[in-house]
Amino acid sequence: MEKYAEQTKQEFEGWEEFINRPVDEKLEAFKQNGRIFDVIYAQQFDREFLDAMGNLADMIRLLAKTKVGQSKLRHLLPHKRAMLYFVQPSTRTFLSFQNACHILGLTVSEIRGTSTSSEVKGESPEDTIRTFASYVDLIISRHPEAGFAEKTAWVLNQTDHPVPVLNGGSGPDQHPTQALLDIYTLEREFRTIGGLDGKKIAMVGDLKRGRTVRSLSYLMKNYQDVELVYVAPDVFRMKDDIKEFLNKHQIPFHETDDFESVMPEVDAIYMTRIQNEYSEDPTSEAETYPDFHLRQEHMSMIQTHCAILHPLPRRYEIDIRIDKDPRAAYWRQERCGMWIRAALIAYIYGVEQAVYEEFS
Amino acid sequence: MEKYAEQTKQEFEGWEEFINRPVDEKLEAFKQNGRIFDVIYAQQFDREFLDAMGNLADMIRLLAKTKVGQSKLRHLLPHKRAMLYFVQPSTRTFLSFQNACHILGLTVSEIRGTSTSSEVKGESPEDTIRTFASYVDLIISRHPEAGFAEKTAWVLNQTDHPVPVLNGGSGPDQHPTQALLDIYTLEREFRTIGGLDGKKIAMVGDLKRGRTVRSLSYLMKNYQDVELVYVAPDVFRMKDDIKEFLNKHQIPFHETDDFESVMPEVDAIYMTRIQNEYSEDPTSEAETYPDFHLRQEHMSMIQTHCAILHPLPRRYEIDIRIDKDPRAAYWRQERCGMWIRAALIAYIYGVEQAVYEEFS
Amino acid sequence: MEKYAEQTKQEFEGWEEFINRPVDEKLEAFKQNGRIFDVIYAQQFDREFLDAMGNLADMIRLLAKTKVGQSKLRHLLPHKRAMLYFVQPSTRTFLSFQNACHILGLTVSEIRGTSTSSEVKGESPEDTIRTFASYVDLIISRHPEAGFAEKTAWVLNQTDHPVPVLNGGSGPDQHPTQALLDIYTLEREFRTIGGLDGKKIAMVGDLKRGRTVRSLSYLMKNYQDVELVYVAPDVFRMKDDIKEFLNKHQIPFHETDDFESVMPEVDAIYMTRIQNEYSEDPTSEAETYPDFHLRQEHMSMIQTHCAILHPLPRRYEIDIRIDKDPRAAYWRQERCGMWIRAALIAYIYGVEQAVYEEFS
Repeated sequence: MEKYAEQTKQEFEGWEEFINRPVDEKLEAFKQNGRIFDVIYAQQFDREFLDAMGNLADMIRLLAKTKVGQSKLRHLLPHKRAMLYFVQPSTRTFLSFQNACHILGLTVSEIRGTSTSSEVKGESPEDTIRTFASYVDLIISRHPEAGFAEKTAWVLNQTDHPVPVLNGGSGPDQHPTQALLDIYTLEREFRTIGGLDGKKIAMVGDLKRGRTVRSLSYLMKNYQDVELVYVAPDVFRMKDDIKEFLNKHQIPFHETDDFESVMPEVDAIYMTRIQNEYSEDPTSEAETYPDFHLRQEHMSMIQTHCAILHPLPRRYEIDIRIDKDPRAAYWRQERCGMWIRAALIAYIYGVEQAVYEEFS
Repeated sequence: MEKYAEQTKQEFEGWEEFINRPVDEKLEAFKQNGRIFDVIYAQQFDREFLDAMGNLADMIRLLAKTKVGQSKLRHLLPHKRAMLYFVQPSTRTFLSFQNACHILGLTVSEIRGTSTSSEVKGESPEDTIRTFASYVDLIISRHPEAGFAEKTAWVLNQTDHPVPVLNGGSGPDQHPTQALLDIYTLEREFRTIGGLDGKKIAMVGDLKRGRTVRSLSYLMKNYQDVELVYVAPDVFRMKDDIKEFLNKHQIPFHETDDFESVMPEVDAIYMTRIQNEYSEDPTSEAETYPDFHLRQEHMSMIQTHCAILHPLPRRYEIDIRIDKDPRAAYWRQERCGMWIRAALIAYIYGVEQAVYEEFS
Repeated sequence: MEKYAEQTKQEFEGWEEFINRPVDEKLEAFKQNGRIFDVIYAQQFDREFLDAMGNLADMIRLLAKTKVGQSKLRHLLPHKRAMLYFVQPSTRTFLSFQNACHILGLTVSEIRGTSTSSEVKGESPEDTIRTFASYVDLIISRHPEAGFAEKTAWVLNQTDHPVPVLNGGSGPDQHPTQALLDIYTLEREFRTIGGLDGKKIAMVGDLKRGRTVRSLSYLMKNYQDVELVYVAPDVFRMKDDIKEFLNKHQIPFHETDDFESVMPEVDAIYMTRIQNEYSEDPTSEAETYPDFHLRQEHMSMIQTHCAILHPLPRRYEIDIRIDKDPRAAYWRQERCGMWIRAALIAYIYGVEQAVYEEFS
């Protein structure tokens, strides 16, 4: 039995060394031929990449407005097969990735939850992912465990049969395509007023536990003269690591718990769900801090160009009557998610040129 | 907390007024440009529409007999993406809709059960459906709640991005495409003997709780000289609202609990599942009223042209030995369901002309 | 209630007689026009068929290496719709069949687990499968019950609307496409050294309960001068029925519990999972018999051409460090599974000629 005990602890050679590097030194491992191959961290995106993805997404949705354009898109990647491996419940990320695949013609296999998978037979997550790589050309995963996508992409890259891994959310910290779609939405909402550069953005709600506001804050280093306002009750203030990051990159910010006081001065309000600090259960009816909700009467207090975002799903943070206001950008934000993911997949397979050519 | 309590009660403006109208006054809300846009109630179907769908379904299945015809069909709607949102278990409705989509070339996303969806995060059903509308072009839903499809279609129609909603069953009362396929099947079974007009139809079993027999009874007003016989034990007699409706439209009917006595005189027998009146559990082995079963020995008592229908699944209501009798129409009825749903989707997108042209 | 009791016992006419025939006398029932129509037992495969499938799979994967070849494949069966009915958890069989379908252009419906199906409404398995046959052109099933695929295929063949059934595993004994892929893998691994004829193969682990090693043993009768070594602890020795079969077909074999002693002399090692004999739970951490594991240090003891197979998922039977050794064939074996299943589906629909023509 000693041999047995020893075997259960076995780990991939080189992994321990890799995982302990700083993120910046890990980025190269997820590139091939100078291009992003696996999408694991928001830190992989620089300004040039963010701009390119936005342009590509714009072109794709323009093509998708006509039947001939849709046909063009559908014939970009019909020879590719994708796998959606979503161990955690997710509607938006799942459906937007799946339909992004459909738009580009990829066929899709899906495993949702682990009950139907071989993990119930005691298989390691790395073997499971490697199995997917035997059958499909692209793996999109969502997993409750931090670092899941990172490790599986790394393991695949050690084999002679790697396929790209797109991180659709792994654990509490990384959800890079959400950050990508948030940036894309802000850029589009500010299209006629110079884009995201120079804007002032309030992030509201549970800033401590919300990974979307954390990733979005990181990406601000790519934009000029952006200013942030963190609006949260004391128990949910933004953590120090992000604040240190902003200071280091000289991005001005301030914190407040007085939501109404900042409404008149910001160009965008990024709302998030908020619940009792002890509640881990998202369906709980625990205290939802109404002072950090956006209500109908606030619409006369915000600027006429102010964009309202929310990663959704919402509960009570935004009054449904606001949905009809043209400044309510969150439904447009959902659709941006599908188009930017289509752009990302097109980029991963290097077919963006075929899209550009339609506009040359 | 008072503001919070107030918010949870918020409702869409105009909904309360709408929902309390009589059905006839609601039909217009689910049309666009004079055509049906959302399919919510069986009451939306008039004779002209029922005939048109039947013809279209016939043409589609004729095309589907050849590879070139199948290719033609598959190229009708490859640019459309559908969503099957089936919160309730369903095999037939789900698969027939899904394969109807495949026949016409649509790609399909599916959510089955709520465990993988954002409803677990406390999202409202209306937000969930609106999210689907962000990603797909068509929503087909099945839900245990009465009025689910009606409300979500109504809400979508208030937005600037509505997509058609097809009701695949919501609650105990409405399942309009089942009624559509039942009519289509009867018309086909009676094709050589003048169609449904002038026929006498027995409906057998649990008429009180069975929504298929209720919807089918309503649609009889579209046909000439039809006569109904309701065959049920006393506890499962057809409810008064339907009987009043028949009287108002001068459709003759009578009721009996003596199944064998009506067998020789009817042109069709529509069987339904039946169980102990206190049983809500469909797998229960509760008393199934054998006097309301169709058995092998009955086949010599019914007419040589009598069509036997059943919405399926069956349990013991129809002896499996009857399956081989040419009068057993229930397996053909299943396939009719797929074809009529394909016709309905083709109609919704206005591509029926492209089908007709193949036969001009 | 007596009538009711009687009905629950009803069985299909002829089934009792059929099921009690020896397998050899049942094979004809699953053919049409002299070709295999349903794939139910490994016994349906003779040498000619195994060779033909291997060749066809080789051609398909060669075509799949180019975009024009992939397009050719995708246009073989776009007019066909398949159904994956997987009541048991399965990753590999499910995904490899699904992607085999995608490669050939078939659209796929899936039901995984019974919770979403009509079986919860008390429907018989035969009615459920017949329902699938109403909507799709091909049924691929996996079921915990022995004989499930056999019975449903037989029932469908009695109707006027049969569709092919492929057995993706039913109960403890039959999993014919696994045997097919194992043969295909061995033939490929031995390609440069004369194929499977004349080779010596060790099967290791739980030979008593493992259906893959049982099926594979049966198929050895199709090959010349093969020799088997059964390596298992006493409680998991190969059952007598297989040993009698081997004796009858004069296939030499011997048994041992000393794994290391046979390592130097075999051309292939077929590893299987092994657990405490009383454990039915595959995730259990019960005793896994480390003497029947393959470890890094063994790699210097086996021949330089020795192929290591495993049906996967593995737990501790093969050290993950062995994965990088070129003799580790189990990941290639996975991919062989997808390609041979694509070949099988192409054969079932008689489109193999269109593949051959590409190479003429």
